[in-house]
Amino acid sequence: MSTNTKAFGAYAGDKPLEPMQIKRRAPGDHDVQIDIQFCGVCHSDLHQVRAEWAGTLFPCVPGHEIVGKVSAVGNQVEDFAIGDLVGVGCIVDSCQHCDDCESGLENYCDSMTGTYNFPTPDEPGHTLGGYSQNIVVHERYVLRIRHPEEQLAAVAPLLCAGITTYSPLRHWKVGPGKKIGIVGIGGLGHMGIKLAHAMGAHVVAFTTSESKREDAKALGADEVVISRNEDEMAAHGKSFDLILNTVAAPHDLDAYLMLLKRDGTMTLVGAPSSPHPSPQIFNLIFKRRAIAGSMIGGIPETQEMLDFCAEHDIVADIEMIRMEEINEAYERMLKGDVKYRFVIDSATL
Amino acid sequence: MSTNTKAFGAYAGDKPLEPMQIKRRAPGDHDVQIDIQFCGVCHSDLHQVRAEWAGTLFPCVPGHEIVGKVSAVGNQVEDFAIGDLVGVGCIVDSCQHCDDCESGLENYCDSMTGTYNFPTPDEPGHTLGGYSQNIVVHERYVLRIRHPEEQLAAVAPLLCAGITTYSPLRHWKVGPGKKIGIVGIGGLGHMGIKLAHAMGAHVVAFTTSESKREDAKALGADEVVISRNEDEMAAHGKSFDLILNTVAAPHDLDAYLMLLKRDGTMTLVGAPSSPHPSPQIFNLIFKRRAIAGSMIGGIPETQEMLDFCAEHDIVADIEMIRMEEINEAYERMLKGDVKYRFVIDSATL
Ligand SMILES: [Zn+2]
Ligand SMILES: [Zn+2]
Ligand SMILES: [Zn+2]
Ligand SMILES: [Zn+2]
Repeated sequence: MSTNTKAFGAYAGDKPLEPMQIKRRAPGDHDVQIDIQFCGVCHSDLHQVRAEWAGTLFPCVPGHEIVGKVSAVGNQVEDFAIGDLVGVGCIVDSCQHCDDCESGLENYCDSMTGTYNFPTPDEPGHTLGGYSQNIVVHERYVLRIRHPEEQLAAVAPLLCAGITTYSPLRHWKVGPGKKIGIVGIGGLGHMGIKLAHAMGAHVVAFTTSESKREDAKALGADEVVISRNEDEMAAHGKSFDLILNTVAAPHDLDAYLMLLKRDGTMTLVGAPSSPHPSPQIFNLIFKRRAIAGSMIGGIPETQEMLDFCAEHDIVADIEMIRMEEINEAYERMLKGDVKYRFVIDSATL
Repeated sequence: MSTNTKAFGAYAGDKPLEPMQIKRRAPGDHDVQIDIQFCGVCHSDLHQVRAEWAGTLFPCVPGHEIVGKVSAVGNQVEDFAIGDLVGVGCIVDSCQHCDDCESGLENYCDSMTGTYNFPTPDEPGHTLGGYSQNIVVHERYVLRIRHPEEQLAAVAPLLCAGITTYSPLRHWKVGPGKKIGIVGIGGLGHMGIKLAHAMGAHVVAFTTSESKREDAKALGADEVVISRNEDEMAAHGKSFDLILNTVAAPHDLDAYLMLLKRDGTMTLVGAPSSPHPSPQIFNLIFKRRAIAGSMIGGIPETQEMLDFCAEHDIVADIEMIRMEEINEAYERMLKGDVKYRFVIDSATL
């Protein structure tokens, strides 16, 4: 027994998003059905639905920054009840028994099922995301939201932008006494600044744009460096424990590698569609530095992040849109014209 | 009071190495004077003396895999006595008070003085290496050799090739239960195989050459993979804790990144003269993998490595040459025609 649900998606990579009907499965024993109230808009949504990434399955309904209220639960579900404020991020299933899953790192499971565009037994054979009225998800992948309900819209981007920055900051042990760089002040970067600041680190934001200097400070950066300014960059040589680089556009990685102290790491959370200029291996060898990657975060860590944000009164800076404004919002995202995340008011579906 | 010493070096990058006279300082209070008995031949020697690397200072006397006997000590030297078997590697001085030096990581000190081609108050204003009869070095940078004296020639390459592979293997915690890849079976790689094997890891050697398969097993590899064989490579996907990549020639890093398990690292110990093809950032993001670098090792760690090798009866596989054969040896090195390290018999100077 599946139910019809209003959604917004595309039938082809070169078509705009438009209203459509999709089906959601009836909740199974371990499922939670969620009435979606808000859904954040991630760059991945745009890349996938426009088929800029390989393998887009149509119809495509994006959206993996989902918040709302539980509207039904399966017989075996004990931890969630109707009316609970909950969230769903980038993951709706995984194998549940591999080393990654058992370590709470479902994000690295080889069988991870993403919230959209991944194979599923449900109709139409691939997952459909949060640009929709409701969603049915196994309880393991449902997160509890402890923020006040009036903050719910601004909580949505924590489910992808928040955990994508929180996870590497924790993994590389950011905290008091550490000097952390955040490259790029967009959807991800603005969360990185807030989170690293709340963790007690000394935070330096890097931006190409003088106009973002004051904004970055307001977000919590202790210092702001204009990355085009070689003198400003050189003043921070060999001083960073971690640089979290949120910029996916191809750029010069060496300029940042030189700013890492011995054993420092630059972690990339965005992959460019054409490669970065090849980094100088000398810059890695000289101070035993590393370039690493990190992808979203596991489910327990996502809950930890949400609780950390509730405790520290952290939400995303958002601009609310109506569902039918999504195509226009994508165009503005491409220009960087958003502070810092669009969130869809799902009531407008 | 300096003394004249026979050496072998070059007066210009396009000139062959030839006999020359150099001066060594009289031992100061903390100095150890060493009669050099053998000196290993490192690829760095060739790159530096031929001015393939920037900044070669002439006359250039290479050599940083030095072993011999103490022939004089300064007044304050307590730990070394005349007749002791000792070694000197890539480092002859450092600032002695920075965080790196205080951590025993003089190799990462910004003021590290390399054994050749680095500024020094001694004549002629830059350091001159081990292709010479003797050398005078501050006691802090002198290593004790506990191998039997008849192994001394084969100990020489431990001072660069040995520590350059030992240090990253230790830093990334190689040991029982870990699966380690060693890429390249040359001067560095053959030491990497021996050391990782002695540390108790499961060792997989990667080579482009079928002819090296049996050799690699004899060195201690549990498995050998021909890196051109895609099926052999794919069979090891997502399985390595660490890959130690000793190949400096530009090559496809992604082929190896895909073999790392979650949180695995590929550590490069050689820098290519022209860049590697730019690695795919997706390969880092998907399993939180890292590309890192590592440069030789600190002095305490070098002593630890020498003691470890003495305990496990590990030396390099060498081919002894006379000093005047050095130019020919360089040509053979460029062809990979050595198993696995040339060592100069300093008595032939
Ligand atoms: Zn996202
Ligand atoms: Zn799994
Ligand atoms: Zn060397
Ligand atoms: Zn120092």
